[in-house]
Amino acid sequence: MQLYFSPLSCSAATRICLYEAGAEATFIEVDNTTKRTLDGSNYLEVNPLGLVPALRTDDGDVLTENAAILQYLAGALPQADLAPADSRGRVRLQQWLSFIGTELHKATFSPLLDASAAEGARSYALERGARRLAYLEQHLTGREFLLERFSVADAYLVTVLGWCVATPIDLKKWPALSAYFARLQERPSVAKAFLEERARYAAQQKRKPRA
Amino acid sequence: MQLYFSPLSCSAATRICLYEAGAEATFIEVDNTTKRTLDGSNYLEVNPLGLVPALRTDDGDVLTENAAILQYLAGALPQADLAPADSRGRVRLQQWLSFIGTELHKATFSPLLDASAAEGARSYALERGARRLAYLEQHLTGREFLLERFSVADAYLVTVLGWCVATPIDLKKWPALSAYFARLQERPSVAKAFLEERARYAAQQKRKPRA
Repeated sequence: MQLYFSPLSCSAATRICLYEAGAEATFIEVDNTTKRTLDGSNYLEVNPLGLVPALRTDDGDVLTENAAILQYLAGALPQADLAPADSRGRVRLQQWLSFIGTELHKATFSPLLDASAAEGARSYALERGARRLAYLEQHLTGREFLLERFSVADAYLVTVLGWCVATPIDLKKWPALSAYFARLQERPSVAKAFLEERARYAAQQKRKPRA
Repeated sequence: MQLYFSPLSCSAATRICLYEAGAEATFIEVDNTTKRTLDGSNYLEVNPLGLVPALRTDDGDVLTENAAILQYLAGALPQADLAPADSRGRVRLQQWLSFIGTELHKATFSPLLDASAAEGARSYALERGARRLAYLEQHLTGREFLLERFSVADAYLVTVLGWCVATPIDLKKWPALSAYFARLQERPSVAKAFLEERARYAAQQKRKPRA
């Protein structure tokens, strides 16, 4: 498998799942600004929208969209037990993947992380985001993971929560969510992925021409 | 099954799929402003986020999130053939559901449809949305549906495209997308659902106190 990723973007969720499963993969870094891979090829030929992640499977299919890639991985790496096997559990997984992708990632974090977003877009996202995080707080109170055990949805959620440091969101307001984030970051697959992604991010920043 | 819906919101996609399958269901209307059902009960007790759709299954489970509900329905109503049966097709379906939910619904249409959104949020959404619609235009050129045949993803897409009339987005700029929208609206399940949802929407507007 080949994973097209940008450091610390939502593609980190796929890296976590690959580490979790001990699966082999080639990681191809994409510069989010130039839309080129580190070796200079045009990423828009892989995904015309220019968004990461994209996953090239061993069959040569190119998959996009985090929720789809994560569910594909769970199916392709059954030994890692990354998704519930029963249909009821699968629907709950899809529910959380959709919530994280729509309510948190796109509606809350995307405008807050985009320096080009207008101030109005940021305050709008911040106000709505607080309600979403309160909902998560309620769900995670007394729970270790989103579902019964670690799943691809936790890999996505811990990745998204990692973005708080670059936004005005202070996770401490939500104790169960803070504790979840601290706990998940200590999980070996997550710790290893964050270390690698942070190093790649630092290297990417160094390469950028100074303003 | 019981579907909690608000007229012309994304819950219309579920109505389309129920009609497509000829399935029995109870439709419970939710007022998006008061978060109460038409008979006065508190919808926040069904979904604390107050978002529609929510689906109560015959087992009594309450499902939320459009992508999850639509995939559940496809599984629960196999006779309607609303989703690919093979794993490769399923991943493609998940890809489109995620794209429509994140890039179109949440990132593009939500800020444009929310009268309380700041102007900055609207212009940001409009500019990014145009690129997403161009991507769809490319995919739908020469295709009848998002996948090989009608699926729950088409039910979601036609619902979202129906919102253009309430935004500055002019679908005519994208001829394949316009033709797809016109074609899908003539599909009996879609035509019946839109007629019903528009009537409910008009009735809802009439009930509102005048400003």
